[in-house]
Amino acid sequence: MTEPTTRSPGAADDASASRQHTLRERNLRLVARAIYDAAAAPRSPGAVPPSRADVATATGLTRATVSTLVDRLLVARLVTELAPVPAQRAGRPAVPLVPARRTVVGVGLEVNVDYLGVRVLDLAGDVVAERVGTGSFHDSDPAAVLARLGALASDVVAGVQADGMQVAGARLALPGLVDARTGELEVAPNLGWSSLDPVPPLGLGELPVVVANEAKLAALAELAGDVPPSFLYVSGDVGIGGGIVVDGALFLAERGWNGEIGHVVVDPAGPRCTCGAYGCLEQYAGKEAILRAAGLEADAPLDSLVALLRDDDGAAVEQARAAVVRAGQALGSALADFVNLTGVSTVVLGGVYTELEDWLRPEVEAGLADRVLAAPFAPVVVRAAVAGEHAALTGGAREVLREVVADPAAWG
Amino acid sequence: MTEPTTRSPGAADDASASRQHTLRERNLRLVARAIYDAAAAPRSPGAVPPSRADVATATGLTRATVSTLVDRLLVARLVTELAPVPAQRAGRPAVPLVPARRTVVGVGLEVNVDYLGVRVLDLAGDVVAERVGTGSFHDSDPAAVLARLGALASDVVAGVQADGMQVAGARLALPGLVDARTGELEVAPNLGWSSLDPVPPLGLGELPVVVANEAKLAALAELAGDVPPSFLYVSGDVGIGGGIVVDGALFLAERGWNGEIGHVVVDPAGPRCTCGAYGCLEQYAGKEAILRAAGLEADAPLDSLVALLRDDDGAAVEQARAAVVRAGQALGSALADFVNLTGVSTVVLGGVYTELEDWLRPEVEAGLADRVLAAPFAPVVVRAAVAGEHAALTGGAREVLREVVADPAAWG
Repeated sequence: MTEPTTRSPGAADDASASRQHTLRERNLRLVARAIYDAAAAPRSPGAVPPSRADVATATGLTRATVSTLVDRLLVARLVTELAPVPAQRAGRPAVPLVPARRTVVGVGLEVNVDYLGVRVLDLAGDVVAERVGTGSFHDSDPAAVLARLGALASDVVAGVQADGMQVAGARLALPGLVDARTGELEVAPNLGWSSLDPVPPLGLGELPVVVANEAKLAALAELAGDVPPSFLYVSGDVGIGGGIVVDGALFLAERGWNGEIGHVVVDPAGPRCTCGAYGCLEQYAGKEAILRAAGLEADAPLDSLVALLRDDDGAAVEQARAAVVRAGQALGSALADFVNLTGVSTVVLGGVYTELEDWLRPEVEAGLADRVLAAPFAPVVVRAAVAGEHAALTGGAREVLREVVADPAAWG
Repeated sequence: MTEPTTRSPGAADDASASRQHTLRERNLRLVARAIYDAAAAPRSPGAVPPSRADVATATGLTRATVSTLVDRLLVARLVTELAPVPAQRAGRPAVPLVPARRTVVGVGLEVNVDYLGVRVLDLAGDVVAERVGTGSFHDSDPAAVLARLGALASDVVAGVQADGMQVAGARLALPGLVDARTGELEVAPNLGWSSLDPVPPLGLGELPVVVANEAKLAALAELAGDVPPSFLYVSGDVGIGGGIVVDGALFLAERGWNGEIGHVVVDPAGPRCTCGAYGCLEQYAGKEAILRAAGLEADAPLDSLVALLRDDDGAAVEQARAAVVRAGQALGSALADFVNLTGVSTVVLGGVYTELEDWLRPEVEAGLADRVLAAPFAPVVVRAAVAGEHAALTGGAREVLREVVADPAAWG
């Protein structure tokens, strides 16, 4: 049975007051969402952002209510007014409302195997500050690496604060199993980290930092583009991560430890993986596996592989192309499993796969066509990620700001 | 931007009236759910079903409101009163409220490769009628098979109606790709059926019939037991289907074509599958594949395999055991992919796997332990299905009744 509700004398009045409060907060959310949805939607040329009257129409609230709530969003610096535009019919000019620029910002942080970084986004989605450093963090000391990232982040945060911006919070992306309910890191195999709370070593004081899986945050970064509402995201790096987005939100059953496509079986007779099993996808399509198979050093820059692939001929070119073809075949096989098991029919290639798209795509598409049972009825669409390099930084900063806009009363 | 709400003079009054109406329906749902949740929850010995007062406590509604709503549920025959029990404290004896028996019923229908059937459940979850027939429906004529099932169903429905029961609707389970949004069948490979509307050939007149995937309905049948709220269900038969249940409901992204574990890659060098690809799970762990590998006819009854497995020794026993071990290894590999990709850590073995559990389990558990990245932190639990034979019949009937209870105002 459901938990009994405790009731006391006067509970009706309290409940009514609390309902009023909740209603006002809900309406504030509705108004904020109307303005932000309009900003995110593709617009025809010449269309202008919504005015208070448009927001009233979109939300079904009265103009007076909308005006009061918009004023609250202006004071909280979540929304900005643009210069008035002449009204289409008779009446006062309309004042377009848009997400505010350079007021409230979110911070994306990341440690990955060969880089770490900080990126700050404002509510309009623009990058207002960024710092990325390289390194080799295989089997690294978490305290030292996190302290280095924390110092970088402190610098960046101090800079944006000096410019009058308020930092709402941060997300730290890590390439490993992060409990989506608690933010605890269980293990990041390619970093050699396990069972630690990575927040204190950052030394960022009061700044709220939430830890999340790298591929999941990178997947969320795609939502800024024109991706369909449901898609599978695969993030190629030294390790291979994945995320499942359904109707615009991450799928997070239990602890959210999904999308581990790097360890899907490609060939049980294949090479042994760092996870202990044999023939995992990572052994064919992980960044280091591809570079090695292409005859390059495991830590060679990806550009050197791309240069080889673009070259005209020669044995080195052949070997590089064969390595990427093999990676594409393995990726196609594992992605077919992913699609068959989740029923999501759009695949976004992120991380290093974005740059290798031209060479991977034919093999991936062939594997999906061969193996996806529903492909004749719902062809699988393969697309390259659009969020650019280090997408988890963008996705993390966006998540911070999404929460602010989703609950503006808590912020303003 | 969201769709503008059209408003007209007097809209406020209409909206208020409609809110009243909705509120009453919502409260009716709450009351029905409190009674049904209590019936479904494990109860300590001696505990009694909830009275009107208990429902008032559980829902936070007043006793007067609850009494009115319970009366509506009694009239609609969704709820029954048991004999009063003496009150624990001073006061009138409490009247326990329970789901009604043999009043409103749901019908499960199924066509599978070697059987078809009808099962009728009442609101208390009891089977009130059932008919199952065998056959060989490989590459069968859908019109003939569905007419046979329809005739069986008509008989059964007439019988329960003659006993004074009302039939709320039916679910038809098919082993194939059914669009979860529209109920259309795209293809059922092992039946050789494609692109058809299977409802008219049933000839069941006005009875509302919704088509669904067999494994998905079988998964839902497990919810009557003490399964955790999220689990992966794998239904072993000639084909192998699957379902993903998250927080008590089916995961259905896009068209719900998920859980197709039968076509997950086990070994790219393996035998060719009916789907055209190589080394799919179905080629190792499909019912016919196991029977053949065990040295039996592909259409031999499962009991003959179980008898062999239980036997003491001999070459035939060795071969049968080796076939099931190989099936278990393949199933463990494919299930590891399923768990790695969805993050759901309970696996329920349904269909023929329930009866083969003793021999499959060690291999399945070893595969999961070897390959699931999160297994050290969230060990995967393997359990046999509890819903019994032809579980999709039970799941389908339950779905019909779940919808009745979820919206009692529409029914009563």
